[in-house]
Amino acid sequence: MVAYKGVVRAQAGREFPQHPREQLDLAINAVFHSWNSPRARLYRRREHIPDHLGTAVNVMAMVFGNLGPDSGSGVAFTRDPATGERGTYGDYLPNAQGEDVVAGIRNTLALAQLEQLDAPSYHGLMEIMATLERRYLDMCDIEFTIERGRLWMLQTRVGKRTAAAAFVVACQLVDEGLIDMDEALRRVTGDQLAHLMFPRFDAGSGATVLGVGMNATPGAATGAAVFDSATAVARAAKGEKVILVRRETNPDDLNGMIAAQGILTSHGGRTSHAAVVARGMGKTCVCGAEALLVDVANKTLTAPDGTEVVEGDMLSIDGGTGEVFLGAVPVAPSPVVEYFEGTADPAAEDASDLLRAVHRIMSHADKRRRLLVRANADNGEDAARARRFGAQGIGLCRTEHMFLGERRATVERLVLATTDAEREAALAELLPLQRDDFIEIFTEMAGQAVTIRLLDPPLHEFLPDLTELSVRVALEHDHGEHIDKDERLLAAVRRLHEENPMLGLRGVRLGIAVKGLFGMQVRAIAQAAAEVRRRGLDVRPQIMVPLVGSVRELRTVADETSAVLADEAERQGVELGATVGTMIELPRAALTAGHIAEAAQFFSFGTNDLTQTTWGFSRDDVEGAFFSRYLERGIFEVSPFQTIDRNGVGRLVRIACTEGRAVRRDLELGVCGEHGGDPASVHFFHEAGLDYVSCSPFRVPVARLEAGRAAVEVASGSGTA
Amino acid sequence: MVAYKGVVRAQAGREFPQHPREQLDLAINAVFHSWNSPRARLYRRREHIPDHLGTAVNVMAMVFGNLGPDSGSGVAFTRDPATGERGTYGDYLPNAQGEDVVAGIRNTLALAQLEQLDAPSYHGLMEIMATLERRYLDMCDIEFTIERGRLWMLQTRVGKRTAAAAFVVACQLVDEGLIDMDEALRRVTGDQLAHLMFPRFDAGSGATVLGVGMNATPGAATGAAVFDSATAVARAAKGEKVILVRRETNPDDLNGMIAAQGILTSHGGRTSHAAVVARGMGKTCVCGAEALLVDVANKTLTAPDGTEVVEGDMLSIDGGTGEVFLGAVPVAPSPVVEYFEGTADPAAEDASDLLRAVHRIMSHADKRRRLLVRANADNGEDAARARRFGAQGIGLCRTEHMFLGERRATVERLVLATTDAEREAALAELLPLQRDDFIEIFTEMAGQAVTIRLLDPPLHEFLPDLTELSVRVALEHDHGEHIDKDERLLAAVRRLHEENPMLGLRGVRLGIAVKGLFGMQVRAIAQAAAEVRRRGLDVRPQIMVPLVGSVRELRTVADETSAVLADEAERQGVELGATVGTMIELPRAALTAGHIAEAAQFFSFGTNDLTQTTWGFSRDDVEGAFFSRYLERGIFEVSPFQTIDRNGVGRLVRIACTEGRAVRRDLELGVCGEHGGDPASVHFFHEAGLDYVSCSPFRVPVARLEAGRAAVEVASGSGTA
Repeated sequence: MVAYKGVVRAQAGREFPQHPREQLDLAINAVFHSWNSPRARLYRRREHIPDHLGTAVNVMAMVFGNLGPDSGSGVAFTRDPATGERGTYGDYLPNAQGEDVVAGIRNTLALAQLEQLDAPSYHGLMEIMATLERRYLDMCDIEFTIERGRLWMLQTRVGKRTAAAAFVVACQLVDEGLIDMDEALRRVTGDQLAHLMFPRFDAGSGATVLGVGMNATPGAATGAAVFDSATAVARAAKGEKVILVRRETNPDDLNGMIAAQGILTSHGGRTSHAAVVARGMGKTCVCGAEALLVDVANKTLTAPDGTEVVEGDMLSIDGGTGEVFLGAVPVAPSPVVEYFEGTADPAAEDASDLLRAVHRIMSHADKRRRLLVRANADNGEDAARARRFGAQGIGLCRTEHMFLGERRATVERLVLATTDAEREAALAELLPLQRDDFIEIFTEMAGQAVTIRLLDPPLHEFLPDLTELSVRVALEHDHGEHIDKDERLLAAVRRLHEENPMLGLRGVRLGIAVKGLFGMQVRAIAQAAAEVRRRGLDVRPQIMVPLVGSVRELRTVADETSAVLADEAERQGVELGATVGTMIELPRAALTAGHIAEAAQFFSFGTNDLTQTTWGFSRDDVEGAFFSRYLERGIFEVSPFQTIDRNGVGRLVRIACTEGRAVRRDLELGVCGEHGGDPASVHFFHEAGLDYVSCSPFRVPVARLEAGRAAVEVASGSGTA
Repeated sequence: MVAYKGVVRAQAGREFPQHPREQLDLAINAVFHSWNSPRARLYRRREHIPDHLGTAVNVMAMVFGNLGPDSGSGVAFTRDPATGERGTYGDYLPNAQGEDVVAGIRNTLALAQLEQLDAPSYHGLMEIMATLERRYLDMCDIEFTIERGRLWMLQTRVGKRTAAAAFVVACQLVDEGLIDMDEALRRVTGDQLAHLMFPRFDAGSGATVLGVGMNATPGAATGAAVFDSATAVARAAKGEKVILVRRETNPDDLNGMIAAQGILTSHGGRTSHAAVVARGMGKTCVCGAEALLVDVANKTLTAPDGTEVVEGDMLSIDGGTGEVFLGAVPVAPSPVVEYFEGTADPAAEDASDLLRAVHRIMSHADKRRRLLVRANADNGEDAARARRFGAQGIGLCRTEHMFLGERRATVERLVLATTDAEREAALAELLPLQRDDFIEIFTEMAGQAVTIRLLDPPLHEFLPDLTELSVRVALEHDHGEHIDKDERLLAAVRRLHEENPMLGLRGVRLGIAVKGLFGMQVRAIAQAAAEVRRRGLDVRPQIMVPLVGSVRELRTVADETSAVLADEAERQGVELGATVGTMIELPRAALTAGHIAEAAQFFSFGTNDLTQTTWGFSRDDVEGAFFSRYLERGIFEVSPFQTIDRNGVGRLVRIACTEGRAVRRDLELGVCGEHGGDPASVHFFHEAGLDYVSCSPFRVPVARLEAGRAAVEVASGSGTA
């Protein structure tokens, strides 16, 4: 075993950063008839273990628990794997082999009852369990057999546990002096914490469980069962909440998946189309609930107990546990979220062990971590939550959302402007609105950095869809109508239409092409900063230019920006102390970071777009089209959008960090792509020497925890650097 | 001057690879009142000289040619700048300053007449001219003034000359023992050769020249004048040839530009929208013909002499000279093309000096160059021409063109297939057709390598456009019709529609997703190779997998490919000797080239897509939208699609070459992007250590010439390495 363990460990750093230590331990203790068996293959996929790794074999003597009443077999945990509570947990089955215990063909006895049946073996077992915990410094699970009164241990391993138990047990072990807080921090994962933060169905609701599938993406979703994409879209359009139920999904189901609250499939594992796409959308999904019979033709779902669900019946699915419930089950708020929100006090008399443990470990993570954690937030509400969750600033404030809603009309005028006067008029209308947005955010984030990205998306995104509009106008013509506005709009949409909008006229290119656009945004930022400063609050605006590929683009915008800032500073009579930097989200930006750093005070890695351009992936298109196949075939161990691709995208990040800092020693480095909230990626960013990671408010605690874990792992040399 | 010369030279390698030596010399000798004058600015743009380079100033004594009949000024060339013919060419103006000569306010005398007026000065001048040629080892042009019988030289420089004269003079100088063949090779450029290869209007046709603009893209175009995009599209749709005439173009004119034979504008220089986009399309364009008055409203074009051209009148534009002719001028074939085609013999008695010179210099280039030159060709005809033009194999044979025409129906069945049976049936139909395509090409290229790229574009490119089809179906519904085929087609088009097709399901991804597709192509290649081999010809097929980003993708396809090749080799009973390699056209492919080389026998850099992904540019979208502005503002010195971007894309190419060869010493390296035919880029590929460049058949001679120049420049250390 040790040899094999060695192998996996050795690989982990180089190839499988996404591979937390616990999963390695699991991998090591898994037992298969053959490493090439279908079960072993599925297992490897699930645990992200590459096919080319070998396995190790233990050969051991056979003992028999079925030689009579003085024989038997059992399984046991040294603590409760569900809650972490101390005590003895297990089952015993007299005159039986281990398989019988697991198979559950005969009713087992509670382990405690073994004391009456065979006191010596029972006490021997208790001693061994204590020894094991001292040896493994962790909660263990055990398989044992008693052969004619003699106790044999079949195997033991660090016991699998629920997320909650992981936190509780870790702290217990500290209190028992078995491990220190650093080790406790290593014993929990961001995934476990995230798991504890998702809303859960109220356990006490006593809802009927129809079946259990694989927990593909956490969350609790409730809605009317629908069995095809079209119906999902149609009902959702009417404001109805639906759960899309399929045997398995394929690209045709995409619109239905988007429209649904959650997705339930009876076939396919964690790398199935449904699971991969739902994960990409962050949508609750339970997949491979094999026990449920899905009949798409007749639009029915039949449970093992015969219960039949027809289209329109309410279903509830728990993406965290994989449970499928009949009816609309009430949702209970997550106590851990209440803790982060500040509405639950871990120091309170009646605080649960879980909250105390989470609080203790989070505090230690914050003490240890070098990485700052910021949040991606576009409005005051998100900013406030991010701050409650421990964010130390805003790493990405997108401004495009500020161009929607009732402002769309103005934006449309801006886009359709044919004269400078029209354009300037539209910009003048937008300025005060933008200013108020920024005042709100600066106020919430007083004293902390707020990184604002200038407008990024192509302008046609603010206009109607070409196909829909073309159809509308064609029908108008067919009916002999000529609606001038539609005609003009269609002409503009055609003119602005792009083959590949992701690689078109957006970001800094837009700022250079549309006179005054970025200038207006910078002025709004400056005026907002001055206003909030006048109110006695500290403001730290950072102006970020998107999609830069060449230092000359950045210089062009940075010069205009500095001019506007200087002008406003003089008008307002206050120093604004704003910095100007850029996103690094194009391969060329990373490859010429040395030049770009000459004009940038900070870099923020946009790893979503950087992954898209480095791989040549349009995420919207590829995830649904073939990612499930790539994962199935082992071309990916994990989607590069979920965990950063170290060899490709990661190499560019390292190049940019090294060459940028070589030119500007105090260059601030951060990441604002979704990877900022991904556990394995956070470890990479720690190693790469970034100053901060930025992620969605709800991922902030996860990033804090993993930043702490990265620090202690690198410190203890067990890291993947 | 020397100092400045030094500066430009020094910069050239680092920043301006696209900067051939001649242009530098020009730059050095250009004279402006101020380096910041608008004229100087335009000049810098045209010559690709960055704004931040300084200039040098000469201070000299003033002399006067207007002090009486014994004074005067003149200009002279040491040889005919148009043909290179030996002799004395120039003008002399008694009692005048240089400006008067240039201004042409008074009629000048032929230089020869100076001998009668002032023999001593004339003979002095002849001596000096001889001295200058010995000093500069090149044809010179001269400005001189005679002040009261004393001859003063004002300035001299290496004389500007036509492309033809460049070749002729270079060979004359060799014959006169002034320079050697290596230097002669340095004295000509691929651009000059390309210039000589474009069709020209018949000089003897005596057509009226309406005006002259800037020669934006070479070529000779004739068509009916149209003044707006819509009319251009409408008339072209009727099969009529049109010239789009505009004051200046903007993105709205794109469709008109695509529809037109050529584009003529009265405003804007070589970096104007019209010039940049036309260059991208390889479409003949004359821009900035300021003398022509374009009245778009009334659809007229008025020449200085009052001639008025109205919509529908025939126009002819010469993109090589910038000339605009009235009417349809007959086109004369290029003698240089006839030479390459083998229909004009440079050894013939009556062969022109030009052909002899071109032949001599091309032969020397072929002797010197290390780079092989292959061609991009998809059919037998192109392959044959490429071979006549000196191609040493096919570097890129695209297979998508083999899926069009009358085969579209079969391909549509393949795309719409819902069962394995349907898909396999469609593939079975395509196999023999593909096989015949390959037999034709292998036969033409017997003995030379043929690199075949497996299917690359997304499948929806073979289906109708989503918007057009949506409109059609909507109208059908509106009329109460339900055409089943259209409904099914629309459903498929919707399903396959992609937001960013360039980054979607294409290339190797398609090969992995569509079972049997690549297998069919490989089988067709194998069967064709076997057939041609049976005919006693040597075949060297190279199978190229497009859009690889990870070695695992390549392995997946390479394994299937090898299996099919082995199977066919056995069935056919012949060794096929096919190699399997990959395109390097994604940043990640270059960044992980060390891994990819383990599964690839050759790399071919697809620098078009590599430029698109490294910069995040969708060429179709960005060139028309903002490239002209980028060039105008100096963000680019030259479009990265025209000349390879050394700092970004070039860095990736070097990484891939180094790390690929480190793993596989005999890894074959080539390039098949358009850069393969671009002079400056060819020099880069020579330095990067590639084995060959591949370009369109017509660019093959240019690539041969520049590959030779690169070799002698690097050899003589004057290269840009």
